[in-house]
Parts: sequence; structure tokens; C-alpha cells
Amino acid sequence: MSELIQKAKEAKEITADLAVLTTEQKNEALLLIAEQLIEETDYILTENEKDIIAGRENGLTESLIDRLKLTSDRIKDMADGLKQVADLADPIGEVLEEWDRPNGLQIKKVRVPLGVIGMIYEARPNVTVDASGLCLKAGNAVILRGSSTAIFSNKAIVQVIHRGLEKSQLPIETVQLLEDTSRETASEMFKLNEYLDVLIPRGGANLIQSVVKNASVPVLETGVGNCHVYIDETADKEMAISIAVNAKTQRPSVCNAAETILVHKDWAKVHLQDLLAQLKEKHVEIRANEKACEVDTSLMAATEEDWGTEYLDLTVALRVVDSVEEAIEHIQTYGTKHSEAIISDDADSVSKFLNYVDAAAVYHNASTRFTDGFEFGFGAEIGISTQKLHARGPMGLPALTSTKYVVRGTGQIK
Amino acid sequence: MSELIQKAKEAKEITADLAVLTTEQKNEALLLIAEQLIEETDYILTENEKDIIAGRENGLTESLIDRLKLTSDRIKDMADGLKQVADLADPIGEVLEEWDRPNGLQIKKVRVPLGVIGMIYEARPNVTVDASGLCLKAGNAVILRGSSTAIFSNKAIVQVIHRGLEKSQLPIETVQLLEDTSRETASEMFKLNEYLDVLIPRGGANLIQSVVKNASVPVLETGVGNCHVYIDETADKEMAISIAVNAKTQRPSVCNAAETILVHKDWAKVHLQDLLAQLKEKHVEIRANEKACEVDTSLMAATEEDWGTEYLDLTVALRVVDSVEEAIEHIQTYGTKHSEAIISDDADSVSKFLNYVDAAAVYHNASTRFTDGFEFGFGAEIGISTQKLHARGPMGLPALTSTKYVVRGTGQIK
Repeated sequence: MSELIQKAKEAKEITADLAVLTTEQKNEALLLIAEQLIEETDYILTENEKDIIAGRENGLTESLIDRLKLTSDRIKDMADGLKQVADLADPIGEVLEEWDRPNGLQIKKVRVPLGVIGMIYEARPNVTVDASGLCLKAGNAVILRGSSTAIFSNKAIVQVIHRGLEKSQLPIETVQLLEDTSRETASEMFKLNEYLDVLIPRGGANLIQSVVKNASVPVLETGVGNCHVYIDETADKEMAISIAVNAKTQRPSVCNAAETILVHKDWAKVHLQDLLAQLKEKHVEIRANEKACEVDTSLMAATEEDWGTEYLDLTVALRVVDSVEEAIEHIQTYGTKHSEAIISDDADSVSKFLNYVDAAAVYHNASTRFTDGFEFGFGAEIGISTQKLHARGPMGLPALTSTKYVVRGTGQIK
Repeated sequence: MSELIQKAKEAKEITADLAVLTTEQKNEALLLIAEQLIEETDYILTENEKDIIAGRENGLTESLIDRLKLTSDRIKDMADGLKQVADLADPIGEVLEEWDRPNGLQIKKVRVPLGVIGMIYEARPNVTVDASGLCLKAGNAVILRGSSTAIFSNKAIVQVIHRGLEKSQLPIETVQLLEDTSRETASEMFKLNEYLDVLIPRGGANLIQSVVKNASVPVLETGVGNCHVYIDETADKEMAISIAVNAKTQRPSVCNAAETILVHKDWAKVHLQDLLAQLKEKHVEIRANEKACEVDTSLMAATEEDWGTEYLDLTVALRVVDSVEEAIEHIQTYGTKHSEAIISDDADSVSKFLNYVDAAAVYHNASTRFTDGFEFGFGAEIGISTQKLHARGPMGLPALTSTKYVVRGTGQIK
């Protein structure tokens, strides 16, 4: 039996036991794992160093090395993260709906765990701890498939997690790491419907698309964000500029950062130069459509490709449009249904935008950067879903749960 | 451009317009379509007759012919079904949650349509009307891919639906039928993530498994039901027998019918013969384990295969077990997570069963036959989901919706 099948089978076997753990048992385990991480910091750092050395030998870029590198502060952050998860409300057992039928049946819709979650992710070793903590709190077993570049770190972290689980008398099969990080094994995971209830890919667009395209196991898709800020004719000048600049520049590498700014032609006439000045001050490179270039002839012309690009850096596409309708149409054509904002003082434009734009989150007079589990107040985030089934937008603990109907009768037959 | 791509693209193009239809517009359309169906009954029956003749020529069984055959009563039922859907509450626009953040952002979680639904189904032409009505009410466009055996009926019905849509000034692209019923086109639908938001297969286990295994478009899986009734030591005799017999025999061809009866050994000692007698009276063929055969030596022995079989007819597997734990383990091993019942007067056994058994619906002292959208009071049913993501158990209109976060600010940046 392959490592994957063996571990997936062991995970499946304990799902019923994990589903009935009390909140206290789960929180105790989270806190014991957090302690264990701190206690074994030196061990984790020693193993992490092996990944760093191998990474340098294999020519990883410094930014990838930085993502891989652990420090005692980063380990403390991971431990603190687990403590925060312990503080969150337990979703399991929550009664979502409850009603009686005319025939006397009493129906309850109750939150239950999903079962076994397959997590496929790239370099960052902190995902190993984050994902384990969130899956455990929601009563799930998790099979972790990390990157080969982080294998020493991940193995060390999971060993430490196991020692924490043992101290709390929870089965170590709650969290399992695949030591085989081959592509073949990942592909095998895609089709393992018998044992896996859901796959969650976390990483770049290629990884996610590969899972979405090839998996028969249901996927929680955390997709790319080609997000827009539309500045309407009536937008307040200062607010519009501050939001557009923030959405583009505050952290350009993340999925909820803006990639295209759409500007109504009448607003552009009066204020575009000020917006451009502030973007340039933040070293933003601008790719503009013809109408924008007419206002500022020094702008670089955008190509068709620019409208569909998630730059993830200090580049922005800029398009002057004739109307809110044109802005909406642009977003429908090029957007990825992630986060879209309108800055406007006109109730009709706002209502049209918020109703017509199909995205996980639509904003009026606020930055797209708020699409985030912590900013939404969920206290945790599994990722930001860009799919429409199950969970859409920032996903907190409830996204890692399913439901079950519990029906009580007194002998009812049909 | 193929028929599929053409129609899927047209459907996608109208999704934003469908999302903002008022409840009145949708209900008016449902009622106009219902009227149109009645008005054009003769036309539909004439076209249906062509399918019947072709079916007979192609050697379809009489039961398939019966599923295919329309009558004016059956058309009236379809029209009545649409009127019932018009009476249901509109899920779209419902605010599911609403809260403010410390920074002043106001967040609303609002129900929105899924977008474009691909429906893949087998012979029954009534699904064409049912699915169209439910998708429309939830603000979705639907691409129907029915069976080639029902192509004349389906084409006629969709033409009639189009005339109803035209009268209500809704786009006819709301409901589209694929005239190309080849397997290749179905396979192409499986991968059409660009245009389809979800696939719903309705039909036999083979169809559903083929979609689940091969689709990259998210699937709402309406799976098979290998359902169990467990009669505990303390079960009331009359109640246990009445529920077991009902769950098996009241309509054996459906997914929520029981396939295996599990009986505690102490109950079996006293009452098994009475249960057997009542099953035999209903012409049920029984396949029993060794312990059951010890009680009644005339019973046919069950094979390993029997425990995993969804008979869908008047056959039942019967297993005498030593404990509620053994019953639970049997269900975890062979069940399909559909509907599972315990008949018992012992609170501990009941609580153990309801908590440990992982299924869409778990019952205490009631028949598994109640797992049904109408019996649950949803007023409609898309199918019964056996998957854990998005929707589990009987699916009403909300299963055909997604959500969207609508966030209102006053200039917030991060």
C-alpha cells in the first residue's frame, strides 16, 4: 500500500472519533501543540536549516528562501496562531436550523466536520501549522502535501505536532504529512474520492488550476484576484485617490490588491492627473487605454493582455470609461470574481454596480484589500474562495464543515 | 462554434440580467410557462409520440417507455409543479448575515444566483420542466442535456417554455436544450469551467459517477443510497417492524429506501420471526448473515456483495449484530452516507448512533423514506445530495444559489 493510501485510510478511520471530540479536548490539543512548538524551536530550526542549504544549492531565489526560512519569532507566531484558533468558537455541533413537521418529525440541521481534508501547498512551512490547527478545530483529519523544498521543516513540524497530539491523547493520524512529495502522488490525491472529502490547494495560480482541472475530489478553490477599483463621475476626489492607491500599493503581492483602475471620463478630466501623480509617487508603473493617454500623453499604452493580468506587483492598468455600465462590462469581461470596488456618491451607480457585478465581495467606498478572514472578523482564514459552491469569499472555520440532518420521530412511516 | 459553446456563452451573457430580476418577473414567467404547457398539450403529446415509437423500435423496456410517456395528466402535473415553484419564497436577495466592523465597514452576506447550471439527466421529460422552473426561480440560466431517447419531447417542451419566456419578456436563453445529445458533448460540458458554474447530474449511479469522476466543473452529486435501519435491543416491537417494512417496501426503487436491516441479537431472539413474517408478506426476498440464519434456518445466506448493494427492489440484506457499535461500524463500512435510522428506546444508543453515523440524514424512530425535499418542507427538490460540500441531504431552492459579500464603507483603506 502506498504511503498516501495508508495515511488517507488511517485518517478516514478516525473521522467519527474526531467528529465527537469536545471543544475542550480540541482546544487543549491546540495549546499543547503550541507549547511543543516553542519547546522544540531549536529542533525545528536545525531541520529548517537543511531546507535552506538545499534551497541555496538548488538555486532558489532569495525571496523563496525568505518564505522558507524559519526563525524563533516565526515559530512563536505559528504557536500564537494556534492559541488564536483555540479562542475561536467551535463550529461543530452548532444547530443551524431547527423545525417540526406537521407529522411530528423534529428536524435539526447540525454542523459536522467535513471528514478528511487534503491540503496541497507550496513553500511556506507556516501553512503546515495553520492548516493543522484549523482542520483540528473543525474536527477534521488533514493530509498535508507540502513542497519538497520544505520537506525537512515540514517533517520536523509534524513530528512536533504529533508529540503535542500525544500529550493531549488525540490520535496522531489527525495530522499527517506525505513524505513522498512527487507529482504522481499529488495526482493520485486528486482522484482519491474514497478517502478524501475535499482538496484545498494553497499556492500560485498554476497549482490551483492544476487541482481544479484534474481533481475528482471536490475542491475549495482559492483563486486569483484580478480586482478593480472603479472611480465614478461623482466620486470624492481625495477618497477615490486614497482608495485606488491603497488597493494597488499597500501590499501588491496579494490576491485582493487592485490590478486595474477604471475611471469615469468626467472625473478623469478634472482629477486624473492627481491620481497619476500619487500613483507615480508610489513608483507604480501605469498601462493606460487610449482615452487615458489623451489626458496624459506620457502614459504607456495598455495591450489587451494587460486587462486580464494579475500583476501582483507595482504595475496597474488604467482605463478611462464613458459610464458605470462600461465599467461593469469591463469587470464582467476581465475580472476573476474576487473583489470589486466602486467609489461614488451616486446612489443609482452604486446600486447598479453592487447588484450587477458578480464577485465574492463588492465594495462601495472602501478598498478591495479588506477581503480577508481577519478583516471580516472571522478570526482565521483558510483562504479566499473564488468559486460559487460551498463557500465564497474569505473562508473561516465554517468553510471546513458540512452539515447533517438529525431527525427525531415517534414511529413515523411514509 | 459548437452548439454547446454557443449556448453556454449566450447563457453566461444573460446571468447578470437574470440575477436582478424581481420576484414578480420570475413568478409571472413561471405561470406563463405553466399556461403555455397546458395550451400546447396536443403539440407536446404529438412530439412525445415520436419518442415512444422510436423507443419501441429501439427495444426500450416497457418501464423505460412508461418513464418516457407523457399524457395530458402528466403535462398538467408539470404545469402545477411550476405554479408551486412560483409560490415558493424567492431565495435571491435574502440577507443571510449582516454585521459592522470596528473600522465602520458594513458587511452583508447576500444570496445570489449560481449563474449557469448544466443539468445532465436521463429519460424523464418532466425533469426538463422541473429543472427549468427551479433554475429560473433561483435566477439561474440552465443548459439542459437530456437523453437522446426523449429528444422530440424535450425539444417540444423547451419550445413551449421559450414561448412562455417570450410572453413574459424574459430572454429565451434562460432555458436552453442541447439538441446534440452525443457523449462527446456531455464530456465537453464536464470541462466547461469558463461558462458553467455547476453541473447537476440526475439519473442512475453510472451517469452520476461518470460526472463526478470526469468533471472539472463543480458538481452537485445526487448519489446512491445504501440506507440502513438498525433495530436496537430496546426497540419497540411494533414500531421497529413497521419502520423497517416501510423503509424497505413502500417504494423500493428510490434512493432513500432501506437496503439492509440491522438487528440487535437480543431483539432478534424474541422478535425476528415476526419481522421476517411481515417482510415475506410484502414479498421481500431476504439475504441474511449467519447469526440471522441461526434464528431462521430457511433464510438465504448473504454474500459480502449484498452488504454493499443498493437493490432498489424487493430484496433486503439482514444482519443480526451484537451491539449498536457493530451496527455503526457496519454502516460506516458499507453505507453511502445517505439516510440511516435507529429504532431504540435507549438514550445512550440513540445518541451514539446519531453522533457517530456520518450521513446526510440520521433518524431516530422514523423511516429513512422521509429524506426528501417535500417531506422536509422545502416545497421543491433538486435532488438529494450525498456530498459534503455546499449542500447535503435534500436540496431545495437555496442549493441553487451562491452568496456575495456586499461591503459599504466611507473611504476605509488598509
